Amino acid sequence: MLTYPRSVARLIEAFRKLPGVGPKSAQRYAFHILRISETDAQAFAQAILDAKQAVHACSRCGNYTEGDLCPVCADPRRASRALCIVSYVRDLMAIERSGEFEGSYHVLGGVLSPADGVGPEELAIGRLVRRVQEENVEEVILATSPSVEGDATALYLARLFEAVPGLAVTRLASGLPAGADLDYADQVTIAAALSGRRSLRNSPAGPAED
Amino acid sequence: MLTYPRSVARLIEAFRKLPGVGPKSAQRYAFHILRISETDAQAFAQAILDAKQAVHACSRCGNYTEGDLCPVCADPRRASRALCIVSYVRDLMAIERSGEFEGSYHVLGGVLSPADGVGPEELAIGRLVRRVQEENVEEVILATSPSVEGDATALYLARLFEAVPGLAVTRLASGLPAGADLDYADQVTIAAALSGRRSLRNSPAGPAED
Repeated sequence: MLTYPRSVARLIEAFRKLPGVGPKSAQRYAFHILRISETDAQAFAQAILDAKQAVHACSRCGNYTEGDLCPVCADPRRASRALCIVSYVRDLMAIERSGEFEGSYHVLGGVLSPADGVGPEELAIGRLVRRVQEENVEEVILATSPSVEGDATALYLARLFEAVPGLAVTRLASGLPAGADLDYADQVTIAAALSGRRSLRNSPAGPAED
Repeated sequence: MLTYPRSVARLIEAFRKLPGVGPKSAQRYAFHILRISETDAQAFAQAILDAKQAVHACSRCGNYTEGDLCPVCADPRRASRALCIVSYVRDLMAIERSGEFEGSYHVLGGVLSPADGVGPEELAIGRLVRRVQEENVEEVILATSPSVEGDATALYLARLFEAVPGLAVTRLASGLPAGADLDYADQVTIAAALSGRRSLRNSPAGPAED
């Protein structure tokens, strides 16, 4: 019944490949392209080609960059005494957006997932180990997602760094998101918030032992 | 704080212009482009250019087509005794998807909206009037959206066609969507469903008079 011209069908198909885009959104995007001016459509196509051509991984941390080093690695004020280890560049961007971290990053390129054939060799772990050895790193912050695979990846890295003397190995706190309703939180999040609870007095009562 | 390479910022900006795409989705789409192969990215850009170049409005109804007439207008079985008038091609596609309409279409290209400077001259109404005169149309189905502007547009067209002898002028039924929960429906929809209620007996009890 549906009778898209062939080039429109192909354009919808192209949009469908974007993450999280279903058939309705894909059609909406494609029809938008058909409505905008020739110049704007060309600018869109060119933006895709330009980004693809100009951008590659930072040779040091794996962040996106057009130069050799990314803006974070090229900034001497962000010397890498604290090294934040993330799975993807989007996680790096999320942490940058918080404005709360002043060290540098290392992008693994994924999470350990034996079921999908992703072992340590598939992630940028060899380069990470070299950086920790060569860059005077004092703390690695394991900032993989608090998911099964993110936790497994963090655990793997924590064990890997156990042998490095004097290196602090930390993990992002897991718990209730800011502004959350307690009764909407899932059990795992509440369990994490409980076991990671912090004393509000200055004495180091600290997290629960169990 | 956020430090996208320039070409990535431009690509995110391009995606942001798509309807309904916020900053997070735009970044997600842009990063997807950075991850896929060069070949796939080129195919995406080419799909945009191809569609833009090959597709134009059907000279008769305004549907998208690569030829002179769209597939609906080119199909002799869909002779235009019933003419369904829609605002946008996406509405035409939605009706085609239902598989319930066998006549032809006329795409207005929008709705009347004096506040946005869209009067009858901005819509394909002149061409519509000519089609009704020339194509032996027996019924026009006003299928603009049941919104303030869609209703105003339908009303305008209904008045315009009052003068045409023997032409049936109908409007899509408005009421509860199939599968809807009555207690989730908004007041306007319930009011429309009530005033448009239909008799389940064969006698023409018809809609309420008020």
